[in-house]
Amino acid sequence: MMKRWQALTDVPVYPHLVELARHPFDLTIPGVLTPARMQQYCCSAAGFDLLYATQRVSDETLAGLQKLADQCLLVEQFRQMRRGAVMNRIHGYPSEDRQVLHTACRDLFGETPAEPAASAQAGREIARLKVFLEELENGTLTNGQGLPFDTMIHVGIGGSDLGPRSVYEALRAYGRPGRQVYFISNVDPDDAAAVLRQVNLATTLVNVVSKSGTTLETLTNETLVRRAFEQQGLDPCRHCMAVTGTGSPMDNPARYLRSFYMFDYIGGRYSSTSMVGAVMLAFALGIEPVLEFLEGASLMDMAAEGEELQQNMPLLLAMLGVWNHSFLGASTVAVLPYSQALHRFAAHLQQCDMESNGKSVSRYGEQVTLKTGPILWGEPGTNGQHAFYQLLHQGTEIVPVEFIGFRHSQYGEDIEIEGSTSQQKLVANLLAQSLAMAMGQESENPNRRFPGNRPNVILLAERLTPKVMGALLALYEAKIVFQGFCWNINSFDQEGVQLGKVLAGRVLALMRGQREDGGGDSSPEMSLLKMAGIAKG
Amino acid sequence: MMKRWQALTDVPVYPHLVELARHPFDLTIPGVLTPARMQQYCCSAAGFDLLYATQRVSDETLAGLQKLADQCLLVEQFRQMRRGAVMNRIHGYPSEDRQVLHTACRDLFGETPAEPAASAQAGREIARLKVFLEELENGTLTNGQGLPFDTMIHVGIGGSDLGPRSVYEALRAYGRPGRQVYFISNVDPDDAAAVLRQVNLATTLVNVVSKSGTTLETLTNETLVRRAFEQQGLDPCRHCMAVTGTGSPMDNPARYLRSFYMFDYIGGRYSSTSMVGAVMLAFALGIEPVLEFLEGASLMDMAAEGEELQQNMPLLLAMLGVWNHSFLGASTVAVLPYSQALHRFAAHLQQCDMESNGKSVSRYGEQVTLKTGPILWGEPGTNGQHAFYQLLHQGTEIVPVEFIGFRHSQYGEDIEIEGSTSQQKLVANLLAQSLAMAMGQESENPNRRFPGNRPNVILLAERLTPKVMGALLALYEAKIVFQGFCWNINSFDQEGVQLGKVLAGRVLALMRGQREDGGGDSSPEMSLLKMAGIAKG
Repeated sequence: MMKRWQALTDVPVYPHLVELARHPFDLTIPGVLTPARMQQYCCSAAGFDLLYATQRVSDETLAGLQKLADQCLLVEQFRQMRRGAVMNRIHGYPSEDRQVLHTACRDLFGETPAEPAASAQAGREIARLKVFLEELENGTLTNGQGLPFDTMIHVGIGGSDLGPRSVYEALRAYGRPGRQVYFISNVDPDDAAAVLRQVNLATTLVNVVSKSGTTLETLTNETLVRRAFEQQGLDPCRHCMAVTGTGSPMDNPARYLRSFYMFDYIGGRYSSTSMVGAVMLAFALGIEPVLEFLEGASLMDMAAEGEELQQNMPLLLAMLGVWNHSFLGASTVAVLPYSQALHRFAAHLQQCDMESNGKSVSRYGEQVTLKTGPILWGEPGTNGQHAFYQLLHQGTEIVPVEFIGFRHSQYGEDIEIEGSTSQQKLVANLLAQSLAMAMGQESENPNRRFPGNRPNVILLAERLTPKVMGALLALYEAKIVFQGFCWNINSFDQEGVQLGKVLAGRVLALMRGQREDGGGDSSPEMSLLKMAGIAKG
Repeated sequence: MMKRWQALTDVPVYPHLVELARHPFDLTIPGVLTPARMQQYCCSAAGFDLLYATQRVSDETLAGLQKLADQCLLVEQFRQMRRGAVMNRIHGYPSEDRQVLHTACRDLFGETPAEPAASAQAGREIARLKVFLEELENGTLTNGQGLPFDTMIHVGIGGSDLGPRSVYEALRAYGRPGRQVYFISNVDPDDAAAVLRQVNLATTLVNVVSKSGTTLETLTNETLVRRAFEQQGLDPCRHCMAVTGTGSPMDNPARYLRSFYMFDYIGGRYSSTSMVGAVMLAFALGIEPVLEFLEGASLMDMAAEGEELQQNMPLLLAMLGVWNHSFLGASTVAVLPYSQALHRFAAHLQQCDMESNGKSVSRYGEQVTLKTGPILWGEPGTNGQHAFYQLLHQGTEIVPVEFIGFRHSQYGEDIEIEGSTSQQKLVANLLAQSLAMAMGQESENPNRRFPGNRPNVILLAERLTPKVMGALLALYEAKIVFQGFCWNINSFDQEGVQLGKVLAGRVLALMRGQREDGGGDSSPEMSLLKMAGIAKG
């Protein structure tokens, strides 16, 4: 079944929600945050509790959002996506026309995968990864001097960097002793230079990740790194590995020790659970934590197939976001993890969400009439409390917040000071911020007034383990996909990054030409080059 | 002179600017980005060029913004601030009632400092810092075994962390060989645990930074670290130093090897050029680079005193921001450095800007009627190009962008690939993005259309040196201050962080009580604790 999806404004329940949004639930009225409301507005899945009593919603709002989800066939579309529908397309125009099957990478734990062929491909890559790890372990695979590899440099950018890096940072507490991972992403030569100073190349593997095998930054950095090996008299082909699409220019056994594959149905920003993330994570953590990570993601994917809004955590998180953004008018959303290990998670989500839903045309090529994806940003608490929370509490921009917390720390190294542990202080601060934003506070001093009604949710799990991290990642992936379906946009392409590439090529060509002929062109590119003092006019 | 500052809407030129904003300069008209416009819309100061031809402004707009600056007495107020006026106050209500003199910390290079007493205090601390560094150098100050200290753990949060950390990251290319710096900020016990695993405590100094000497997170982390020393049989008092206010509970020679001072006229988020940043930076880099850093900041402070909008870089950056935010309606601003070394600079600015200007009452305690400070966010390019730039180019939110770039890399380790170096590629991408956002592009495929008119500026310097970093920091500090003056708010307090602290204390008290009496309270705090599974109800 492929129907013509409706614009959000054409969905029958839309006017009713607009009406409800004129008087959203008021969280500042004393006594409204009752124990009953808190119990009712809680959803659990895959190790997480989602507490949403501090959203500006009532039962009536939630009923309206359920209708919206139903009338937009959100769950139906998600199911089709997982089963191999061609969701990455713009009808009537040239587009990528691809399936969207990042979920298949982790659909390895049930009896019947939703899309068996893709999951079988994923399973084969996992099996090849296991062989690779065993060879590292048993000494079959060593460097030229027979020494084991203890370091990996992961070279990638965008989807091949942010997701894997944020998961690595989240789980490095579980790292195998003696194994280290570094990342190079930016074409800024200082990025590579800073890393190369820190590693012993003789025992270093370089994992070069590019789906297309043609990413400018990644190939440039690979060349820089290869040259560093050569300068030390080492053969880079004995140190470099590749994660790439089958048949890409990087799929070349003569240049790479080993290659792992990703497939065209996996978008870069959704690729953390494919080999793009798994190779580096398995080197750092071992294969078992990686399988747990995938299993957590798979559990959340399955939770996303439930029809009941209040039982389907990804759908619920998505629809609360749509409520805040499309009906209450918030331009941004902040993701604030109370966990230092998640310090790069918001950066990953920023990519995943904004590259997916920062669009202006519908899946039929029509200009959208409502706002699509919000700006997503965030830093860990409690740090943020000493920084930008001032604006969250008393600023003129309303920022919906998604708090993330854990009942226990990862290392378990903690002490009691003034009657509480650090972890207790951390969680107490999270809970207190949620209430403070919702309830606000009156004061005779206008500068000490807190208006409240700042909507927020709390995502809470026992401990940030590999499985929980997988669930968290998949929760946000599904949230983003649901919102894209709801706004009727294609969340899986990225045409908006093309123009910059074209212009960068033109500027570089001018820079090269300039050296010979002295310029004279009055195009904006040349004028800017001259102004920048790079082409001297 | 202390007049009653006007609300932005009461400033005479305000209606004219509102009128101009109905038809802002259209950057997408072919041919408007002429060489003449680019040359005219360029301002230089303290090593930086600010290129702003890609803003939606004309000469008429700039004349209006000049009037706005004049009628709001912005430069006059800045001068008063540097000369010791009590700018941190809410007239008619209890408030901090303090001077704002972070600029005095670096006003050390001219004949006559703007506020001699404060600069003399700063000079004395610098002199004490030099003595300390010499003692480290000549072996007077060593650990218990007579070994030199090679590592520093900087413990602070918020203003005592983000600014110093971002400057350290920016300048680590200039680090003294063999010296390392780590940071602990979050009350999350995993933050400290991860750092403590990596250092040799025997040769480690711990620099504890808290102006009040009572910051919960910092004291907790200090206690955790002190315990780690004791567990290794080391005396923490021989390893811990303090940066704090005179007379604070941390101003205690019995507990600290050495103390350096900051003063109540320096706000935390403006404290990077005080001892809050200088002690750690001087340990990492040596004293000379720190003095260059201060000198760069001082040069930019002086540039901020010029009356001519188009010659005063901080004022110009501020007024372009006011134009985009208050007149063109942008909710956020993105700071995108094309330099991996600046990867934490946006996080620092996020604090400095949003904590300063995320306010809702004027300096007379009146509710503001226009929006105040924007949401500030950003990540380094080219990485961002593979992430959230999709939304910048084609999303429904207009995000004004401030690009930052350098003509040369820090390490100078670069290679030419396909006719250009990495640094050339980096700069070419920056210039190309600026033009792409401004000009946009038509296409027959609606999904490949770029609407353009995304306002942006480029800040460009030769190389990211200590002096250039000082200028960059001071540029943004002054920008924020000018904007706060223009919106007629107090940019120097942070009452909005208080409620969270009070509620966190209440939640912690409940957590402690709960263990004994089993609860039974139905307050929102207790209900939430129960729901969070922390107090079992």
